[in-house]
Amino acid sequence: MFICPKKYSNQTNMHVFFHSFICVNVFWCVHYFDGYSGGGVMAYSESQSDHGASIVESSETAPKRKKLVVLGTGWAGTSFLKNLDGSLYDVQVVSPRNYFSFTPLLPSVTCGTVEARSIVEPIRKIIKNKTGEIRFWEAECFKIDPVNKKVHCQANAGTNLNGNGEFVVDYDYLVIAMGARTNTFNTPGVVEHCHFLKEVEDAQKIRKSVIESLEKANLPNLSEEERKRNLQFVIVGGGPTGIEFAAELHDFLSEDVSKLYPNIHDLVRITVIQAGEHILSMFDKRITSFAEQKFKRDGIEVKTGYRVTNVSDKTITMMDRSKTATDLPYGMAVWSTGIGTRPVIRSFMEQIGQADRRALATDEWMRVQGLDNVYALGDCATIHQRKVMEDISAIFSVADKDNSGTLTVKEIQDVLGDICERYPQVELYLKSRAMGDLVDLLNDAQGDEKKKDKELSIEEFKNALAQVDSQVKFLPATAQVAAQQGEYLAKCFNRMKECEAKPEGPLRMRGAGRHQFHPFRYKHFGSFAPLGGEQTAAELPGDWISIGHSSQWLWYSVYASKQVSWRTRALVISDWTRRFIFGRDSSGI
Amino acid sequence: MFICPKKYSNQTNMHVFFHSFICVNVFWCVHYFDGYSGGGVMAYSESQSDHGASIVESSETAPKRKKLVVLGTGWAGTSFLKNLDGSLYDVQVVSPRNYFSFTPLLPSVTCGTVEARSIVEPIRKIIKNKTGEIRFWEAECFKIDPVNKKVHCQANAGTNLNGNGEFVVDYDYLVIAMGARTNTFNTPGVVEHCHFLKEVEDAQKIRKSVIESLEKANLPNLSEEERKRNLQFVIVGGGPTGIEFAAELHDFLSEDVSKLYPNIHDLVRITVIQAGEHILSMFDKRITSFAEQKFKRDGIEVKTGYRVTNVSDKTITMMDRSKTATDLPYGMAVWSTGIGTRPVIRSFMEQIGQADRRALATDEWMRVQGLDNVYALGDCATIHQRKVMEDISAIFSVADKDNSGTLTVKEIQDVLGDICERYPQVELYLKSRAMGDLVDLLNDAQGDEKKKDKELSIEEFKNALAQVDSQVKFLPATAQVAAQQGEYLAKCFNRMKECEAKPEGPLRMRGAGRHQFHPFRYKHFGSFAPLGGEQTAAELPGDWISIGHSSQWLWYSVYASKQVSWRTRALVISDWTRRFIFGRDSSGI
Repeated sequence: MFICPKKYSNQTNMHVFFHSFICVNVFWCVHYFDGYSGGGVMAYSESQSDHGASIVESSETAPKRKKLVVLGTGWAGTSFLKNLDGSLYDVQVVSPRNYFSFTPLLPSVTCGTVEARSIVEPIRKIIKNKTGEIRFWEAECFKIDPVNKKVHCQANAGTNLNGNGEFVVDYDYLVIAMGARTNTFNTPGVVEHCHFLKEVEDAQKIRKSVIESLEKANLPNLSEEERKRNLQFVIVGGGPTGIEFAAELHDFLSEDVSKLYPNIHDLVRITVIQAGEHILSMFDKRITSFAEQKFKRDGIEVKTGYRVTNVSDKTITMMDRSKTATDLPYGMAVWSTGIGTRPVIRSFMEQIGQADRRALATDEWMRVQGLDNVYALGDCATIHQRKVMEDISAIFSVADKDNSGTLTVKEIQDVLGDICERYPQVELYLKSRAMGDLVDLLNDAQGDEKKKDKELSIEEFKNALAQVDSQVKFLPATAQVAAQQGEYLAKCFNRMKECEAKPEGPLRMRGAGRHQFHPFRYKHFGSFAPLGGEQTAAELPGDWISIGHSSQWLWYSVYASKQVSWRTRALVISDWTRRFIFGRDSSGI
Repeated sequence: MFICPKKYSNQTNMHVFFHSFICVNVFWCVHYFDGYSGGGVMAYSESQSDHGASIVESSETAPKRKKLVVLGTGWAGTSFLKNLDGSLYDVQVVSPRNYFSFTPLLPSVTCGTVEARSIVEPIRKIIKNKTGEIRFWEAECFKIDPVNKKVHCQANAGTNLNGNGEFVVDYDYLVIAMGARTNTFNTPGVVEHCHFLKEVEDAQKIRKSVIESLEKANLPNLSEEERKRNLQFVIVGGGPTGIEFAAELHDFLSEDVSKLYPNIHDLVRITVIQAGEHILSMFDKRITSFAEQKFKRDGIEVKTGYRVTNVSDKTITMMDRSKTATDLPYGMAVWSTGIGTRPVIRSFMEQIGQADRRALATDEWMRVQGLDNVYALGDCATIHQRKVMEDISAIFSVADKDNSGTLTVKEIQDVLGDICERYPQVELYLKSRAMGDLVDLLNDAQGDEKKKDKELSIEEFKNALAQVDSQVKFLPATAQVAAQQGEYLAKCFNRMKECEAKPEGPLRMRGAGRHQFHPFRYKHFGSFAPLGGEQTAAELPGDWISIGHSSQWLWYSVYASKQVSWRTRALVISDWTRRFIFGRDSSGI
């Protein structure tokens, strides 16, 4: 099914939603493989023999390279590292995981369509091929100290490390790309009894747990009721991750499990609980309704308008809009309702006066508000777009070159480029109203008179732009956004000196920006929602919608091409092939 | 290197040693795939809708099929199930693992040469293609009650099962194939601090732990001494498993890790601690010495003549022959010193008066001594071969057809076939002395007189056979033995009725046997010891020895051909290919 373009009506939906979005523009990918295929040469030249604390401090003896510390090796951090010229800085990376994982395929890992190891790539392999020295510490940052420019880290210790495994790393520049955690909305029992689906380990645990539920339900000493309860799979959250998991689980159970557990297969139930009106609410309505119909046909129950209020070891309690509580006995539950702030980010936000926010606020150059050399990107950050109304007087006075107190159309047109770069909402607003330029807007605001030589007072200018800020959007918390941010920031770091000499940003529309660079601009390449049974819904650029088997093949090819290395690409493709030939494995390992 | 046949001098070595032995004769393999490729048809016909306790008891309503319970799904159990005609019995399988694992490749899993999932096959997939009804319960048997013919089982519960997850299964025939556990010789600290290498999970843990050691040693806050300790890998036990793991680890560290952790690679040490004089002592001496030399060249330290007496979290204490203790600081240790008895088998042995044994003693028909309908095979059992001397009077009187009190050569030759079948040590003894038949032996015992018509008294007969029982051998605890035993026993069960009517065993040499069947006879197909660097030592049938790269290719082809399904075969081969192209993955998952 291929549906013609239609305005994406949910554009204003500000919910952050996980992944499933295709990410990473092509240039990034190509750029990476340039570096990768040039391999063989050992660019990772950490050949000095000093270890220990001396490693961290060794950089102090190196004359001029500034210390750049990167926290996290997810989409944002890895994309940053891959695009960074490591020879310009003394780079240290801190992450509790020594690998990058291709998270959009996590739902496929939960049922064995793809193996966990096929979607991970060691971060050392990625940085090894970079020029310059990039060092990696497998540790968790538990405290950021922006006053003394230090990050405090805790090694993924184990029993075999002297002391408590803590160490401190100094920085000149800090890049925070630590991602987010699953938001439980403090619902009691969720952490204890539900699975999450954010890390590779989560997916592995879910896989084991699904098989365990089947084996348990098959045992001889269960009542029919208990058997049914063990086979009740619940997904809380109707976003792309939850829906994709539900679809994968359904495929696994109907394609593979039914043959091996024939006597219990009829008792299996999959239920999706969604607080809103519809599942996949961030997608086009046609996708939502297709998904809901397909799930109905497949026997996947979708309970919309329910909020989960409590999870016990055997029962999920939920409440509908009329506050009536319902108990649902369950065997296994996956919680996937959106993202929350990590504790270390939360306490950092409190330190820097951002306690009331949900994520680290940065300017359009990724710089954490109020701090000079700290950057944040990916799921742990939100770009705080300057509002036109905040700067309206400044804009007016910059535009009013002759200081006449009024703006001519010519004066406005002179600064229009800068305005649109600094305040992208202006361009979006014009597009949404199908207007050519700001002059149309000004005319529109003042009726039909098309006077090219009309002059505007500040009040008239303000009125004309009054609605513009409604177009300010928060970016979704997707891999696609994070990867683009990482690439953008790395390129800023690579051209730091060059752009200090020749600034390229919107110089005439300053505000408190970092005007040697263009501000970050996100480019959406479309998104997928796999729905099972070899059918996928795709929202492509230009608001094209495609649903069905053809999109599934598009999904296969895009996800294969976006893999981080030839190794993972080969593995993912061979996993898919293996699944077609032999089905999914149901061994409980 | 290919060395001409030489008498296998270590044949008398009675040590049970793990695996690495190629197993499963070709017929077994072919037979299996016959069943497998005939698939599509749902032979697993458990279509009755009754569940719960009723499932276990349902068989009571079925008129005549006897209840056959199989404990374990390792080499012995799986081989038994694959060869069994499931339509003849009401079969139930109890095992804590719902899959079969190809254990000879476990050392390859520890370093990612082969993935864990590539060597496992769900047991349900294996039994699904069988005729008849075979049911599987994922549970651990914790008590065998031979008096009431019941086994008590405990489900692999989790939090979601009512009660304590216990249930009881009745049997008419019981097949015990529960394997063994690693023998720690009660050395303090081993269970707490060492890894074992018996299960797939063990191999996965080792893999994670190796990467963890590297990441820990790379951290900035360590002293040189601590760094070295973290990089000291210790293998306790110089048998095939330990040696293969050491070789795999060395390959992984030198081929893959050295590029990614260049600054710590020089600090890595691998040490093998062996109580005996040599590693691989059950192999031909030429293999042993080749392995020792190769390890020396590779920088793998082999400490022979040391017994480990204590393991703490940071130090292994060992003692040499002169009782001098040495401390070895270590980062990670794998304990692989042989097999011990599982607690459930131990308590069963106490019940049936075998408390003083190391494994369940069975007769040559796999029947547990003293019990009529209980069979034991694989690593949890030892066949107790009847000695000639125990039965010498019975043998004499059977042979002495005319009750003359003496045996003529003709009389002896008449029963020679039966004697050799019932007491295979006779044949082995004749071979070892290069004698053609028993007559030579009798002549030998009485000097050179070659009188065909000589008559022997019972005393003379006794003297002639006096040395024969020295050839009685215990079978090694290998996959090869277990698989052959499983096949043998399944075929006995398949022909139970037929052979009751037409017994085929050594009827004239009875003892307390089960003479409708031929007794079990093990056929050794050779064994491999992979030594790393694409070199393998192979001991082939006919006492041929082959060492080097050619044997490695033989190893690849034999292990690929012996895989339990086309799926695992394809996966294992693709893993090997992947390793050649991309190397091994070092992500810490």
